[in-house]
Amino acid sequence: MSEISATTAAMKTNNNKEKQIGIGIIGYSIGKAHANAWTSLSRYYYPSKLKPKLVAISGRIKDKVELEAKKFEIEKTYSEWEKLVNDEEVTVVDNCAPPSIHAEPMIMAAKLGKNLVCEKPLARNAKEAKAMLEAAEKAGVKHLTGYNYRFLPAVNLVREMIQDGTLGEIYYFKTAYLNVNEGYDDPNFPFGWHHDPNVAGYGALSDLGTHALDLARFLVGEITSVSAASATFIKERPLEEGSTKKGTVGVDDVTISCLKFKNGALGILEAGWVMAGRTDFLRFEVYGSKGTVRYNLERINELDIYFSSDPKRTSGFRNVLVVNKAHPFLKNFWWNQGGGFGWEHTFVNELNHFVNCLAEDMPISPQGATFYDGYRNCLIMDAIMESAKSERWTNIPSS
Amino acid sequence: MSEISATTAAMKTNNNKEKQIGIGIIGYSIGKAHANAWTSLSRYYYPSKLKPKLVAISGRIKDKVELEAKKFEIEKTYSEWEKLVNDEEVTVVDNCAPPSIHAEPMIMAAKLGKNLVCEKPLARNAKEAKAMLEAAEKAGVKHLTGYNYRFLPAVNLVREMIQDGTLGEIYYFKTAYLNVNEGYDDPNFPFGWHHDPNVAGYGALSDLGTHALDLARFLVGEITSVSAASATFIKERPLEEGSTKKGTVGVDDVTISCLKFKNGALGILEAGWVMAGRTDFLRFEVYGSKGTVRYNLERINELDIYFSSDPKRTSGFRNVLVVNKAHPFLKNFWWNQGGGFGWEHTFVNELNHFVNCLAEDMPISPQGATFYDGYRNCLIMDAIMESAKSERWTNIPSS
Amino acid sequence: MSEISATTAAMKTNNNKEKQIGIGIIGYSIGKAHANAWTSLSRYYYPSKLKPKLVAISGRIKDKVELEAKKFEIEKTYSEWEKLVNDEEVTVVDNCAPPSIHAEPMIMAAKLGKNLVCEKPLARNAKEAKAMLEAAEKAGVKHLTGYNYRFLPAVNLVREMIQDGTLGEIYYFKTAYLNVNEGYDDPNFPFGWHHDPNVAGYGALSDLGTHALDLARFLVGEITSVSAASATFIKERPLEEGSTKKGTVGVDDVTISCLKFKNGALGILEAGWVMAGRTDFLRFEVYGSKGTVRYNLERINELDIYFSSDPKRTSGFRNVLVVNKAHPFLKNFWWNQGGGFGWEHTFVNELNHFVNCLAEDMPISPQGATFYDGYRNCLIMDAIMESAKSERWTNIPSS
Amino acid sequence: MSEISATTAAMKTNNNKEKQIGIGIIGYSIGKAHANAWTSLSRYYYPSKLKPKLVAISGRIKDKVELEAKKFEIEKTYSEWEKLVNDEEVTVVDNCAPPSIHAEPMIMAAKLGKNLVCEKPLARNAKEAKAMLEAAEKAGVKHLTGYNYRFLPAVNLVREMIQDGTLGEIYYFKTAYLNVNEGYDDPNFPFGWHHDPNVAGYGALSDLGTHALDLARFLVGEITSVSAASATFIKERPLEEGSTKKGTVGVDDVTISCLKFKNGALGILEAGWVMAGRTDFLRFEVYGSKGTVRYNLERINELDIYFSSDPKRTSGFRNVLVVNKAHPFLKNFWWNQGGGFGWEHTFVNELNHFVNCLAEDMPISPQGATFYDGYRNCLIMDAIMESAKSERWTNIPSS
Repeated sequence: MSEISATTAAMKTNNNKEKQIGIGIIGYSIGKAHANAWTSLSRYYYPSKLKPKLVAISGRIKDKVELEAKKFEIEKTYSEWEKLVNDEEVTVVDNCAPPSIHAEPMIMAAKLGKNLVCEKPLARNAKEAKAMLEAAEKAGVKHLTGYNYRFLPAVNLVREMIQDGTLGEIYYFKTAYLNVNEGYDDPNFPFGWHHDPNVAGYGALSDLGTHALDLARFLVGEITSVSAASATFIKERPLEEGSTKKGTVGVDDVTISCLKFKNGALGILEAGWVMAGRTDFLRFEVYGSKGTVRYNLERINELDIYFSSDPKRTSGFRNVLVVNKAHPFLKNFWWNQGGGFGWEHTFVNELNHFVNCLAEDMPISPQGATFYDGYRNCLIMDAIMESAKSERWTNIPSS
Repeated sequence: MSEISATTAAMKTNNNKEKQIGIGIIGYSIGKAHANAWTSLSRYYYPSKLKPKLVAISGRIKDKVELEAKKFEIEKTYSEWEKLVNDEEVTVVDNCAPPSIHAEPMIMAAKLGKNLVCEKPLARNAKEAKAMLEAAEKAGVKHLTGYNYRFLPAVNLVREMIQDGTLGEIYYFKTAYLNVNEGYDDPNFPFGWHHDPNVAGYGALSDLGTHALDLARFLVGEITSVSAASATFIKERPLEEGSTKKGTVGVDDVTISCLKFKNGALGILEAGWVMAGRTDFLRFEVYGSKGTVRYNLERINELDIYFSSDPKRTSGFRNVLVVNKAHPFLKNFWWNQGGGFGWEHTFVNELNHFVNCLAEDMPISPQGATFYDGYRNCLIMDAIMESAKSERWTNIPSS
Repeated sequence: MSEISATTAAMKTNNNKEKQIGIGIIGYSIGKAHANAWTSLSRYYYPSKLKPKLVAISGRIKDKVELEAKKFEIEKTYSEWEKLVNDEEVTVVDNCAPPSIHAEPMIMAAKLGKNLVCEKPLARNAKEAKAMLEAAEKAGVKHLTGYNYRFLPAVNLVREMIQDGTLGEIYYFKTAYLNVNEGYDDPNFPFGWHHDPNVAGYGALSDLGTHALDLARFLVGEITSVSAASATFIKERPLEEGSTKKGTVGVDDVTISCLKFKNGALGILEAGWVMAGRTDFLRFEVYGSKGTVRYNLERINELDIYFSSDPKRTSGFRNVLVVNKAHPFLKNFWWNQGGGFGWEHTFVNELNHFVNCLAEDMPISPQGATFYDGYRNCLIMDAIMESAKSERWTNIPSS
Repeated sequence: MSEISATTAAMKTNNNKEKQIGIGIIGYSIGKAHANAWTSLSRYYYPSKLKPKLVAISGRIKDKVELEAKKFEIEKTYSEWEKLVNDEEVTVVDNCAPPSIHAEPMIMAAKLGKNLVCEKPLARNAKEAKAMLEAAEKAGVKHLTGYNYRFLPAVNLVREMIQDGTLGEIYYFKTAYLNVNEGYDDPNFPFGWHHDPNVAGYGALSDLGTHALDLARFLVGEITSVSAASATFIKERPLEEGSTKKGTVGVDDVTISCLKFKNGALGILEAGWVMAGRTDFLRFEVYGSKGTVRYNLERINELDIYFSSDPKRTSGFRNVLVVNKAHPFLKNFWWNQGGGFGWEHTFVNELNHFVNCLAEDMPISPQGATFYDGYRNCLIMDAIMESAKSERWTNIPSS
């Protein structure tokens, strides 16, 4: 089903309610960044077409939920997500919980006609993700998967240069997301839900690599097959800080894969969370027949661009600060020229886009990632892990 | 008068009112960054000790004032700053107007017992600044000059390393603030108040150089004498975009100065706003007997640090991403480790510091810049311009 | 057969002759860098243990051979390599010809008891390489494959840090050699021997990737299996500049591969010669449990090193200029501290090492690459290309 | 007297002898770099127009002189420079001794009709330098001052872009030469001739700053006045390593100066040899009305160039690798494209230029620095030191 028709259906159901768009957030970790964006987007892009109101937040640990509720002036708190989803004032369910708590709430919310925002990865595996996508499409609601880096000005400048042919035929796309998370390079860093496949799906792949794969699709297009390897270097971790009881890490510390794109380009993906020295190294390079670009999230507003057409005497990578009114998203962004755009604004842009799409019945995609994109991403991750086991190139189903 | 006793006086006068601290903002340009910070600081540092409420905003152009008022949900708008200053609900007057409108409102507000925030430079010259300082001290109110870069995590890490001796004796401090503002390298960019000495005081020096001089004082200490040169390269500009009528630029495009510090260090200052390729290049390097650091605002969270004590085999500038809980301001900052801290958060930190000082009767200085710092800064700028004319080293009065 | 015993055999055969070591060079392209190194090594490392004398040079094009001969004051020129190999004055045959002319001359020279230097890749495939290795070992002569980047100070600093445990357990090694050669990104760049598999073996893989694979083995150890993809983007080229007659490119423009190392590390290799903006991008990154290093030949003397043990407050990649007496090769190198070491000195170091090994009957390996290393490298390249076809992980034979 | 007429005179005197151009080198420290260049220049630029022959070398310490003589196959060694200067076979006297031994040998050699190469600074002060210039001009011989960085490809690319107007009107030129020499940041590094004003003239200024000043003149033009400050931070040093006997450092550790250029540009010079973390940091930035360039010798072949005319969407500093045939000096340089050009080749280019000028009676200037340039440089250094004392702007005599 095309996204546009889904959109139309969504408007039929929700149009009236959207004037007083009510947000319910499940989870308080990355949930903070969402809450901040919902709260402030109407200031950054004034006037916003709909005014989001934070209605409710849910989470397991009462103290933490209440703290976030006070911080963001949210009236209602729930310990069970079911109540949040069923809250009539909630018209958008924003799922910031771990992957194991993605499918059920989203499917229930879809059935209730709520619009859907879900953090990445959409699910633990493609099967779950497909059920979510189908529920959303059936309900005709808006659905967005939280690939917030689609909303970086630099990334969009790259996309424009690929789409308008500036970079020519794309030969090669390499991407990596490497870091140490909050200290995963230390074997004494305790076991958490990220290390548990039942909660997280995969490890570094679904925590980090999934972002890089989404950028691959956003920028270069569909991936048709993969050949991967994966390893767990720190095989067990203390169950709590300082504890001698250990939990077995059931997920990958490092996963790498060769990629083949539908358009003939080759690619490489690297994901790793035990990579000393890397803080937030989401990197990509795009090599085309007419030029090359490279990007690193650690320098969030910088993009290096090389044009083959420049005279040899003065050709070189241009270190472009993607911070002025000529750049995507920034024409109407309210800081003046300069280093104003930061990480939190990726969420502002993302949720503002969602709000605009609700208000004007516009498709979320291709600027934003839908559940379809979330599902495709899961298909690729599943194939990567299958390939790592089978030691063969593995095809991604085309639908 | 010491700042501490001023503080005590301030609390006598204002203590009761401060529970419902009411902010009035004069000006809507950099005023946006202030309004955003006042609005959001209690979320970033929850719970804040006092809850700022944006009470009023004033400015010359009615439409623009009202737009900002709506954006930030400010009830009252004024076309004349006098009314804002006299508004009883306003207990903090936050002056975001051009320098020529600094002294009068601040002095009037001081007399009314209001606490004071004033953008940089504090005034067009030291004489004006001194009157403002005296008024604030006499009134016993809190006063802050808007040198927001004192609130960068990286800058504070440098300050700690100087103060605790990590860098040893400081030999040399070089700093530059170079950019093209919104397009000043283009001779067709129209004449504005920044080009008019009656409004701005000086040009690149008081728009940009003043920040660099404040960092010099914040990091290395008092400057005792200067020897400078100054030039205006684009001598006239169209009065309006596309107009053939020209205005004569009465201020400096580039100003440079050698500096001598009280502690024996040498220094260099550069300020320029016609510097092609520079976007927001606030740069400094500190050379000490035990190490060196360098910083560039264009890479807001990076600091390069060299320690002489490192073994020669593996010594080199460390490219430190100043983004984790070990770094100044970030322990309780609510983003997780990573690239969360951006330009707008310098204002959040600055005004949050102001709020904390009000709430707990703590001195603004040395973390924040007071009107005393603003006055010293004006003294140095006056000396620089005098030196550029006299072609001699010029001493800065010690008080 | 171990290399040491081969060495002993070599000395028996050659010891007397070596005093007047006579060099014969086949080929004049990279041959220039060799000739320069042979000529100057005794100045850089004075006194050298043996004094190389350039005796003869051979090549197909008479004018070019004579030009190089005059430039380097070489008395004899040959149009046929057979004569050079058989020249009695020649005791070292230095093969700088294309891969298709590697096996025959080297095997003949070995049989004549000459010591052997051969440019990389050692041969067009492992079968040829094996024959060369066997001939060299049987003859008991010294043999070196021209992986000159083993002789970079920065690379050796990395090797030391891996071998002494400074970087801990190696998790991940990524390496790339990307460039545009002399203009291969331009489809009008004419067809040359590099594009002909009968001469070159493979394309970007054996021109560039082979260097990166050698560094992988030199730094991390043996590779046990690979999974690769390969593509030719510019499928035909004019036979001569401006010609409408086209030659079909029979080799890879881009080849990528996942790698598994014997010690459990994962790895990635990238080779490409149509990569706009890349000039001489031989890059590697080594991620270990205790730190990370990264290197780029385009900044030949820089090495970025991260130590996990540094305090979080001041940790970051150290940008080490590998240019002083504390660094490998530089203690006795005759430039003072500073940027003295350049690309041509990799050959100086390499051939000086060869001379030292001859003089003192020391093994070429592990500092230098032997024909064994050249053979292993060919085995890996063959496996990569086989894997790219079979779409399966392919094992590298252990011997 | 114009240089061209001097050249003609030189040729009258020396023309016949030059076929067998005989080089005599005074000093063996930087002398090594000269000897290497004389020896190898005919290989890099084959065929050279004249073949230099190293005839003699002189120096105080017999062992060191003889070592260098053997290394470079120089037949004659002298302990006294007078004998070398008077050696009939010597037609070019290449003075690599400390500044205090510059004037006498050069003047004597000029009188004998020898051509002159002299390391920088030309003399300890302008008075000495003037006498040298006059002697050279009177004798009608060729004279070159050893500002080898005029022969960097990147520097010449900048010069071309200034001369052809690419960068527009030059607004501002900043330059610095900062390092720690061989360890001067360590107070225990022993006293040497560089610390003695009777031998060296000045300290960091004449060791390092002089190079930066030459680039200022080479790129931007004459300097008309200066205002400076200077400091000695490490006031005494052990006379020998580990000794308790101390020598008083009589020269500057750090010298900084504002500059005014004849063409209206402003400038800054920094020189310092106690600057931790700096290895060979010869840096300059040129800001013009149409663009900006920046260069750092530590990355010898890189030049960052910004063009104001680039579209804002993709404008940024281009990181140009100045290593290919489109770049100055490299068209006929015999390494292929890539990182071939290193520090030692600045001397190769410089002395090859000298040889070409001798062979074809071409003027050394403006590509090379003559004694006139060396004299002007001394005038500026004298003025800088005078200004540092008088605390006034000091004019440079125009002739």
